[in-house]
Amino acid sequence: MPAEIADDIKDFKIEIKPIGIIKNTISNPALVADKTGLFQSSDKKAVEKGFNETDEEISEIILRDDLNDALYGIEDYSHLIILYWGHGISQDARSLLKVHPMGDRDFPLTGLFCTCSPARPNPVLMIVVKLIERRDNILVVKGLDAINESPVIDIKPYVSEFFPVSNTAVPGWMKTIAQRHNTQ
Amino acid sequence: MPAEIADDIKDFKIEIKPIGIIKNTISNPALVADKTGLFQSSDKKAVEKGFNETDEEISEIILRDDLNDALYGIEDYSHLIILYWGHGISQDARSLLKVHPMGDRDFPLTGLFCTCSPARPNPVLMIVVKLIERRDNILVVKGLDAINESPVIDIKPYVSEFFPVSNTAVPGWMKTIAQRHNTQ
Repeated sequence: MPAEIADDIKDFKIEIKPIGIIKNTISNPALVADKTGLFQSSDKKAVEKGFNETDEEISEIILRDDLNDALYGIEDYSHLIILYWGHGISQDARSLLKVHPMGDRDFPLTGLFCTCSPARPNPVLMIVVKLIERRDNILVVKGLDAINESPVIDIKPYVSEFFPVSNTAVPGWMKTIAQRHNTQ
Repeated sequence: MPAEIADDIKDFKIEIKPIGIIKNTISNPALVADKTGLFQSSDKKAVEKGFNETDEEISEIILRDDLNDALYGIEDYSHLIILYWGHGISQDARSLLKVHPMGDRDFPLTGLFCTCSPARPNPVLMIVVKLIERRDNILVVKGLDAINESPVIDIKPYVSEFFPVSNTAVPGWMKTIAQRHNTQ
């Protein structure tokens, strides 16, 4: 039965029209991938920015004019979830099934769905950002890790109660990554 | 400039091929929408299940066979983030810009991106689930609120450190909804 079900969806295609675009100063991704794996970018500034400074990066999300009314009330949230499209990820990179997390060979070769790698079959990337300001159809946010001109797929409210904080388990290598990361 | 940028992405289309399909006992959604708004379903069982019991619902995520290796190591996680496609949402429902949250007219008419409404321009829906078991290309999970046969877009690891718990603000009506919801 599983095989049949997989057949059912083989021809199913989802078409998405972006709701907006991201503008910021991140021109190169910290992580790049080709069909052989995930690597840290040869652009040292991008790596440094990607791993240390995107928490402080200020981005603008420019919404399509026709969707302006859908932001009504957004100022009441401190944080938002942004879904965006990894438009720089090649088809080769999207076919990877295992990677070394963060492109770091000290971490074990791991199934892609166990990692936050931007190179994935459907690079719909997700992050929680801080809402600084809304100006008409522009949201100014802090902490968005997308590169400049990434298309935006969705904006959702961030509600901490929907995210469990206790009794959660992750592998050791992910604990190491998480400890490097400061949330707030 | 914002208007020009909006023009830039008007013709950009993202094509997504599902990575799998969801199987469970949820046949009708708790919330339905047409071009006039968001409503509670006339199927009382669906509403009851949707608002009270999906936390306990067991679902199977059946992954495409060719992606099996991308699950390598997934058992080390207790929780996963599932992105799925709201395949039952009509084009009319996707054009809504404001809704009463939860289809409840006691809540104020609110911009769509401030709500978790499944009826949204791009119904890429997201939820944290508990991983019960992996059997080959099947993940058995608890708490998935999708209806049966929803296409799966992505599976991501859930790492609580990436989700802020303090200094977050939401509007009063969302506080009311969050208080009804039990997280672990």
